[in-house]
Amino acid sequence: MPTYKAPTKDVEFLLNDVLKIERYGNIGSFSEATPDLVSAILEEAAKFSEEVMQPLNQVGDHEGCKFADGAVTTPQGFIAAYNQYVENGWGGLCADPEFGGQGLPQVIGAAFNEFASSANMAFAMYPGLTHGAYSAIIKHGGEELKAAYIPKLITGEWSGTMNLTESHCGTDLGLMRTKAVPQDDGSYKITGTKIFISAGEHDLTENIVHLVLARIEGAEDGIKGISLFVVPRNLVGEDGTVGENNNVSCGSIEEKMGIHGNSTCVMNFDGATGWLIGDEHKGMRAMFTMMNEARLGVGIQGLAASEVAYQNAVAYANERLQGRSLTGAKNPDKAADPIIVHPDIRRTLLDIKSFNEAARALVLWSAIKADVVDQGADEDERSAADDHMGLITPVIKGVLTDLGFKNTVAAQQVFGGHGYIREWGMEQFVRDARIAQIYEGANGVQALDLVGRKLPRHGGRALMSFFKEVDEHLAANQEDDTLKVFHDGLKKGRADLEKATMWFMQHGMANPDNAGAGSTDYMHLFGLVALGYMWSLMASSAKAKLDLKEGDLSYLENKITTGRYFMERLMPETGAHLARIESGSETMMSLAAEAF
Amino acid sequence: MPTYKAPTKDVEFLLNDVLKIERYGNIGSFSEATPDLVSAILEEAAKFSEEVMQPLNQVGDHEGCKFADGAVTTPQGFIAAYNQYVENGWGGLCADPEFGGQGLPQVIGAAFNEFASSANMAFAMYPGLTHGAYSAIIKHGGEELKAAYIPKLITGEWSGTMNLTESHCGTDLGLMRTKAVPQDDGSYKITGTKIFISAGEHDLTENIVHLVLARIEGAEDGIKGISLFVVPRNLVGEDGTVGENNNVSCGSIEEKMGIHGNSTCVMNFDGATGWLIGDEHKGMRAMFTMMNEARLGVGIQGLAASEVAYQNAVAYANERLQGRSLTGAKNPDKAADPIIVHPDIRRTLLDIKSFNEAARALVLWSAIKADVVDQGADEDERSAADDHMGLITPVIKGVLTDLGFKNTVAAQQVFGGHGYIREWGMEQFVRDARIAQIYEGANGVQALDLVGRKLPRHGGRALMSFFKEVDEHLAANQEDDTLKVFHDGLKKGRADLEKATMWFMQHGMANPDNAGAGSTDYMHLFGLVALGYMWSLMASSAKAKLDLKEGDLSYLENKITTGRYFMERLMPETGAHLARIESGSETMMSLAAEAF
Repeated sequence: MPTYKAPTKDVEFLLNDVLKIERYGNIGSFSEATPDLVSAILEEAAKFSEEVMQPLNQVGDHEGCKFADGAVTTPQGFIAAYNQYVENGWGGLCADPEFGGQGLPQVIGAAFNEFASSANMAFAMYPGLTHGAYSAIIKHGGEELKAAYIPKLITGEWSGTMNLTESHCGTDLGLMRTKAVPQDDGSYKITGTKIFISAGEHDLTENIVHLVLARIEGAEDGIKGISLFVVPRNLVGEDGTVGENNNVSCGSIEEKMGIHGNSTCVMNFDGATGWLIGDEHKGMRAMFTMMNEARLGVGIQGLAASEVAYQNAVAYANERLQGRSLTGAKNPDKAADPIIVHPDIRRTLLDIKSFNEAARALVLWSAIKADVVDQGADEDERSAADDHMGLITPVIKGVLTDLGFKNTVAAQQVFGGHGYIREWGMEQFVRDARIAQIYEGANGVQALDLVGRKLPRHGGRALMSFFKEVDEHLAANQEDDTLKVFHDGLKKGRADLEKATMWFMQHGMANPDNAGAGSTDYMHLFGLVALGYMWSLMASSAKAKLDLKEGDLSYLENKITTGRYFMERLMPETGAHLARIESGSETMMSLAAEAF
Repeated sequence: MPTYKAPTKDVEFLLNDVLKIERYGNIGSFSEATPDLVSAILEEAAKFSEEVMQPLNQVGDHEGCKFADGAVTTPQGFIAAYNQYVENGWGGLCADPEFGGQGLPQVIGAAFNEFASSANMAFAMYPGLTHGAYSAIIKHGGEELKAAYIPKLITGEWSGTMNLTESHCGTDLGLMRTKAVPQDDGSYKITGTKIFISAGEHDLTENIVHLVLARIEGAEDGIKGISLFVVPRNLVGEDGTVGENNNVSCGSIEEKMGIHGNSTCVMNFDGATGWLIGDEHKGMRAMFTMMNEARLGVGIQGLAASEVAYQNAVAYANERLQGRSLTGAKNPDKAADPIIVHPDIRRTLLDIKSFNEAARALVLWSAIKADVVDQGADEDERSAADDHMGLITPVIKGVLTDLGFKNTVAAQQVFGGHGYIREWGMEQFVRDARIAQIYEGANGVQALDLVGRKLPRHGGRALMSFFKEVDEHLAANQEDDTLKVFHDGLKKGRADLEKATMWFMQHGMANPDNAGAGSTDYMHLFGLVALGYMWSLMASSAKAKLDLKEGDLSYLENKITTGRYFMERLMPETGAHLARIESGSETMMSLAAEAF
């Protein structure tokens, strides 16, 4: 039976020592977030994740959601756990106090998301999607919509969804057929069928608030004719009471590889009443508020899967006795040594550990920037943070889920044959983690978004700011011998990233296929440099504390050792990415489609 | 519904043009293998795989094997298909004519194995394991054992298994507890419990011949006290009739991630009668005959999974309309272009295609060497082939299954959300392929076998022969401009492999952890160089035929383009492997076990 322990100590090290969130005290939501309060919240979040959500993870997978007569039943225990989630007020953690939220910074929510997704990814998706719907309505919805939906979405009494995909179009939303017909009262009648709707129907809440992309009758073709609507499953009376069904029904649920505890629904809208969010034909903008938040959330799922799989692999590697150390018995009074003595097992574990700790830093660093975008004191600061989020969102989504999945596979491998058996739970982590590379924009789409859209925006301003930040860090820390491996590695990675960017500038304009051909490698190259930068920051902070003999010294030393491993073993991949990028698109485009 | 088409044309190109099997006409089994006969067999093998086995692949996954009252029921259709396999005589393809086999070279069997595993991996495992049992008995068993078991194993009327693993020991067989007590009649009473026994119990055959590792009472501890026994599930009368149960029973079957159509059994031997194969306490040697064959078979499974997943991804990429080419609409009369216009989709597909074709060459090249080991005319030739097999077996097992699995994941990704849904069948390929990295020695063990055992054997003779062969090829083909990219790439890879080997020589003796720390990277580095060499051979053959305007010219041109892609995109990874190897073991070993 797998176990899980939330990495609260690591989060506190990052928030307090590396990212130093006290610097952001001038931002509204941070003013309340004292180290003591944050610590207390993280403790409670850990407890809820470990004790309420995690024990339901395997049963959720084995039972799955059941569909009958239009209704979806979640696995045993999900309702009780969800009710506890609502009662404890977790849904309001980072929500607007005006509507009943606690108003804490999103970075705290990001930490909780990681714990929750590690504990039970399928379960955590229900409130995760609700938060996305909350964000779209609060940022783009009118006052009436906010008043009608936001409070219940904050408490979690109602849940939310995103209805985008149709059977013939996923990525290319411009092909969408769902239509909206304006009514005299300002509402719309929505008709169409959506597929792959996570949490589209379930038994956890009394109402489900669907956010639906549709084309208003007569609007132009393509994505410029798309609008976003709030379509509650059940109509809501003026007094807030939940009324009759709004011609919204679940047609079926999918049988899928994993996340069995989360319902994936075909949703039918048969003249359902919907209300416009934001402006007509500007649905993509509102949708992207939800989508960008969802992409960060999915990146966190990649990290979360990697973390929980890692913890269980470590436990197994310390318990399982097989063979002897190559340098002589380490456990001579037993018949064999624990397999953690073997370098190849340590390599496997450190590949994961050194990723997890840097990925956590990258998530929290970026979550702070997301707070700055919303609440930063001056326009320059907000704009710089917005640049950062544009650039880093596809990287977090794509790289953390690709490597997160890879790490679940590696952790499963530590178990040998037992890793392949359901009861051990490792193969569930693999199956669950796999979806994160696909949904909310498949990772190839993230790479193209990065290279084709985010990189060139404002003349490459976002990347230049990133380089500037890295360079300032390098200049400030170059004297220290302990940190040399970090600086050398980061410098080399940064140089490769710059070369790759230059190559795109020289070859991608004339032939965009050259940019497309290198996009996935570029995303991963960027990811390594960003993670390498996080390691360099963490190592500097750890070193500073060690010099002062402050804090848990062996924790800090291990932090530096883990980072050193990252630099030695993961950073060299940047050179291979660069070589692939520089090979361009000629060969791959020269093969006729029928020759594949 | 997934489809499959056996790559017969590719196999014929390899056998006739690249590997030139007519050169081996002096070897018994090859003398019959004329191009026409081989072609006819491949056609029939393709037909059987595509029409009989493949249609049962999804039903096998969905139904799985059922266990009740000690009996295992295979999925619907498996019995009929298996009977057809027996009737068509597939089991005898490469078996000894003295016992009723057709005596064809193992390279033909390897091609059939690929087709069968692509079509239905879970089904193909039943006869695959039978062939392993056949090989162990025919090479190490006495005349009586051969007469009693070989004919029925060849026809497939009886099936075989390998019983190695116990719950507390997989890799470290020396810890084994199953015991064998000598009886007056020369037989042994076998008592113990084995786990993870593929095809341990099922309803396809009237008897199951278990090959069981056990310790003869009083034998020394560790692997030097292990012997190998034939233990039929049902006792066999002198006239060959299948009699009563031999105290062999299946206790349960595992619920696992994939290969649901193949039973994975807990096997109980309660004083079962067994007969020794080979000498007492020399069980590991006989077991390795089976195991090495099984490892090649598992490597083939990696390739096979990659191939069938690839074919379905190509079909989807040609059908699915989403978005537009970056260089302008390619399908202007439709609402969107097929996704194969996108460079990132082509990258994904070519990563797989360029691996598959080289992996197929590596498998067939090595299968020919396996034939030479058994039947080569002179001792030098046999010994060189044996060196090759020692070195290449862990590479084929480890690299083809690691990359094969990775490729099933990549192919699944092409389908977007549909790839995650069971009915599309792509996620089954991923789940099935995953086991190949684990069983018959987890891939980390393959890497250690390569670096710790196979590489240093006979003073590194095997590797030096490999380098010599590569160098001769490079020298013979260096003048040709078309082939330059192949030679440059291969030369660079070969140089990295040599550097890595030197590094081990300098640092692995003093501290074996340095070899262990780099073992997996070394295995993959070796794999890339071996695959790169295959590409260089294929490109030279294709070029020679193109120069003569002989054969299917566009097939040959596409072959060279695909190989060029491999050189540009996959070979650069050798440098990253080398850098990781050269970083050594210091950092990973310096972390205390409790600090993970």
